[in-house]
Order: sequence, then C-alpha cells, then structure tokens
Amino acid sequence: MSGAGGFRSIAIVGLGLLGGSIGLAVREYLPGVRTTGFDLSPAHRARAAERGLVDRVCDDAADAVREADCVIFCVPPGAMGESALAVADAVRADAVVSDVGSCKVSVAKALSDALPGRHVIPAHPVAGTENSGPDAGFASLFQGRWCIVTPPADVDAAKLAALTSFWEAIGAKVELMDAAHHDRVLAVTSHLPHLIAYTIVGTASDLEEVTQSEVIKYSAGGFRDFTRIAASDPTMWRDVFLSNREAVLEMLQRFSEDLTALQKAIRVGDGATLFDHFTRTRAIRRSIIEMGQDDARPDFGRKH
Amino acid sequence: MSGAGGFRSIAIVGLGLLGGSIGLAVREYLPGVRTTGFDLSPAHRARAAERGLVDRVCDDAADAVREADCVIFCVPPGAMGESALAVADAVRADAVVSDVGSCKVSVAKALSDALPGRHVIPAHPVAGTENSGPDAGFASLFQGRWCIVTPPADVDAAKLAALTSFWEAIGAKVELMDAAHHDRVLAVTSHLPHLIAYTIVGTASDLEEVTQSEVIKYSAGGFRDFTRIAASDPTMWRDVFLSNREAVLEMLQRFSEDLTALQKAIRVGDGATLFDHFTRTRAIRRSIIEMGQDDARPDFGRKH
Repeated sequence: MSGAGGFRSIAIVGLGLLGGSIGLAVREYLPGVRTTGFDLSPAHRARAAERGLVDRVCDDAADAVREADCVIFCVPPGAMGESALAVADAVRADAVVSDVGSCKVSVAKALSDALPGRHVIPAHPVAGTENSGPDAGFASLFQGRWCIVTPPADVDAAKLAALTSFWEAIGAKVELMDAAHHDRVLAVTSHLPHLIAYTIVGTASDLEEVTQSEVIKYSAGGFRDFTRIAASDPTMWRDVFLSNREAVLEMLQRFSEDLTALQKAIRVGDGATLFDHFTRTRAIRRSIIEMGQDDARPDFGRKH
Repeated sequence: MSGAGGFRSIAIVGLGLLGGSIGLAVREYLPGVRTTGFDLSPAHRARAAERGLVDRVCDDAADAVREADCVIFCVPPGAMGESALAVADAVRADAVVSDVGSCKVSVAKALSDALPGRHVIPAHPVAGTENSGPDAGFASLFQGRWCIVTPPADVDAAKLAALTSFWEAIGAKVELMDAAHHDRVLAVTSHLPHLIAYTIVGTASDLEEVTQSEVIKYSAGGFRDFTRIAASDPTMWRDVFLSNREAVLEMLQRFSEDLTALQKAIRVGDGATLFDHFTRTRAIRRSIIEMGQDDARPDFGRKH
C-alpha cells in the first residue's frame, strides 16, 4: 500500500479542468501514486503531456486504465456512459470506478450500466473555475472544498474508505450523500445559478437600445459577476441540465415564483417587502464566509 | 485654483462606502483639496472621523457644505431630496452639486427640486463592493472604473469640466450620457443582476428539503457568487428598484422570456438550443476582461 487510500495507480479519463487538477494534486500531495491519463482530443493529450498533468498520457483509453486500481472519469455527464463502455474490458475487476460529474443519479446509472459488477462509487468535488481544458487545472483546486460521494447501497466498505481517503489526501472534505438528494442540493447551489447566469448574459446581449459595448463598459455594477459563471464549459452544462432535468425545473419554478413576488413589490412600490427580503439575504453570505467557502475580502478579493 | 477640476473644498454628504471612498481618494490623489463631511448617523460620523475619511466631520450638514465649491450627495437614492433640502440654504450659489446615485432621472429631479437654480450635475461612478458603511471605503475604488455624468441640457460648461476633471483625478474614466439612457443601461448591467441575486438567495433559503447548512456547504458550485451581490446595502437597493421601476420591470420582462425559453429547452431535452446559448455567452466575458472591467485571473482571483 502506498499513498492515502491505498491506491497505487490512478487512471484519469478526461484531462480538462477537473481531470488535470486531480493529476496535479496527486503529484503534489501523493507523490508515491502513479497516474495515467487519456483524453479523446489528441490536442488535449499533447498539452496534458507537456504540462505533466499525469505521469503517462496514453493514446488509447484502455491502456490508460489497464493497471489502475482507481479509474476516475472526468468527462461531461452525457459522455460518462460512452467513455466507460470504451474501457469496459480493460478496467480491473477490483478497481474503484469513480467520476467527478455534477449530476449523480444519471451518472451512477451510466457507469453501472457500462461496467456491471464493478465497484462504481460516484463522487462530485464541488470545486472549479470558469476555465476548462488541459490548461485550466491546478493542484490546489480541491483544498478546503467539499467532495460529495454517493455510494450505492451495496458498496464495498473498504473501497469506499479508499476513495474517501484519496479525496482527503488531495485536500477535500468528504461528505456521503444519497445520489437523488445530491441532485436536488446541487440543483439549487450550482445548476440553477448557472442557468440564471447564462440567461441574464444572453438577455443583455440581445438588447437593441443598450449596446453590447455599454453592457461591457458598465458591467462592474454587478453584471460582470454573472459573466464568469456564464463562461463555463457549454458541453458540460448542456449535459448537466439534461441529466438533472427534474430537480432543475423544480428549483426554477420556485425561483420564478419568488421573482414574481419581488416584481410585484417593485410594481406597486412596496418598499417594505423589498427591504425585508434584501436584509434577510445578507446573513447567508456571512455564513458562507465563516464556513470557509468563500473569500472574506470585499469583491472576492478582486484587484482595485 | 488647486487640484484637478479647480475645486478647493469638497463636501461629502453621506460617509458610507462611496462617500468614504471619495474622501480617501481626494486625500490620496488630490492632497491640496480640503474635504468636509456629514452623515446622519452619529456613530458613522464618529467612525468617519477616526478613519479620517474627510478632513473635517461636521455634526451639522449645513456646516459641512457651507464653504464647499462642490457638494456630493452619497446617500441612497430615496434620501437625496431630503438630504439636499436640509442644506439648501447653506450651499453656495456657485457650487457644483452632484451625487453618486445608481438612478439618474429620479435623483436629478430630487436634487433640482430641492436646490432650484443651483448647478446640479448628477453622476454615477460604476464601482463598489458588497460592503457598506464608514468602514467600507478605500481610496482606489474608482481606479479604472467608469463614472457616468448626466448633465442637464443647460449645464454650465465650466462646471461640467470641473466635475469631469475631478473624477478623472481620483482615477475614474468619465462618460457623458442622457439620464434616461443611463437608467436603462444600468437596469441591465446592475439593477437586474442585483434583483436576480437577491431572489435566488432567498429561494435557496426557503427550501424545506435542502437545508440551509447544505446550501452554505456546497455554495462553491456557483451559488456563493450570488450571495456577494445579495449582501449589498438593503436600503440603497430598495431605493434603486423603486426609483428606476419602469426600466427594471422592462428588463425583467425580457429576462423572464429568455428564462422561459431555456426552461422549455430543458423540459423537451433540446440540447442544441442549450449548447448554442451557452457558447454565445462566453464571448462577453472575454470582452469584459479585455476592457479591463474584471480580473483576468480564474474565479475572480479567489484564493484556492
């Protein structure tokens, strides 16, 4: 056994922001553990090799996973099944199969269907930036962030412990959760915010009487915050909304009701309702900062 | 004449984030210019004096403005009229009267009504953080940010030039704009984003099946970005929505239409529409960074 979790060799399928960050984090915090990697894009493989995201970049996915005792799929939710199928014959019977997908019910099913009888233990590190691709990853991405693991009912306790130890070793705090509950929690803390941000950036781009140049120049009034999220990977986010449809639509329904209520308060000039609402939302920011989940510096620590 | 713009003495009414930052910026970049200040809150006046936000904090608003050749009202939009009325007899006839309000049509009217015949030249520096009060200000807040000035048709050219030079001297880039157009531009780049952020933070707080603790823990998935904006000053934002009602409601209508379209795409599983939309919104972020209106570092430069 070498390295936390006892994994000796970790295969990373998909060398973008998350896959690359896992590779770099292993190099930094688990130097005894070997890493192999694969990406469908030859250009990304070449860049991953240049940056040293993993010890060995393979041109064949099966080669990348063959010796690994842990295989982590770091591809968009909609590509999980296909990626797993492509290496089904090569994955070791005793390997832990995991992922980093933002939806867990659909991804768990895709991986289990593609790899029946294997030790599939889905996971989701709640961490990232707006950048994507093989240049985006960095070793400290998971430091202090939560990684939600959604083990199946019949999980092998030793395998689960190994995966948990692995994430802790590269800096994350692990929480176990039911997959369906995960999808509802993330619908509100991640999926709905992204949908709203993508929407408002689109709305602002389509105005006739306010030019694109004006939107850009005066974006420091608040709009620019939304553009960061709306610059996230389109393929991944398309897949997230299609994979977690029901929970997203339900949260969206609640959001729309609340927005309608504030809209009415504005229309009728009900300042008391607006003030009460705006006062209430301050407390949650304080809690997020106290829990170490955001930068305490004003304006996220942006340069002024 | 001393100092850019020729102002010798500037009075700041309201010593919060904006007023305090102006005072500190004058001390830093226009050391020859005297500053006086007033705030309705005795506690804020005491703290402003401790921090040295202005050269002299006055306990009486009239005393603060009496000798100033430029008076800047830095109070919430709904308090502009009353603040101006309180000093109407003390403002010099030749003084420039300006403000920093986020809405310009209503504020211009409030200031002109309170101070008939004076040189009212409204302005709005598009800069800020989520913090408020006398501890929030800092001298570099306006560096590289735009300040929109909305002069009346009969503006005195020399007074306008003085105000423009002043803002440039403390770091801002000045743009002249029609007040009504300002209110439409800011409705989309600032007011709508704040309304959306306040709404979603409220929605997340009210869920039964997802706990507040879960919302906080997993906020790094995107939600935390919205909490920053939703921590802004409730009084000011209540006033903004009441003062710029028509433009906000119109932008909100467009946003709701766009959201409904994406909602339908999710419901029917139309991945192509989602992908196209999410791709389109990336470009605007790049432009904002190229124009120097946001931090180019991933995740706003947050610590990881």
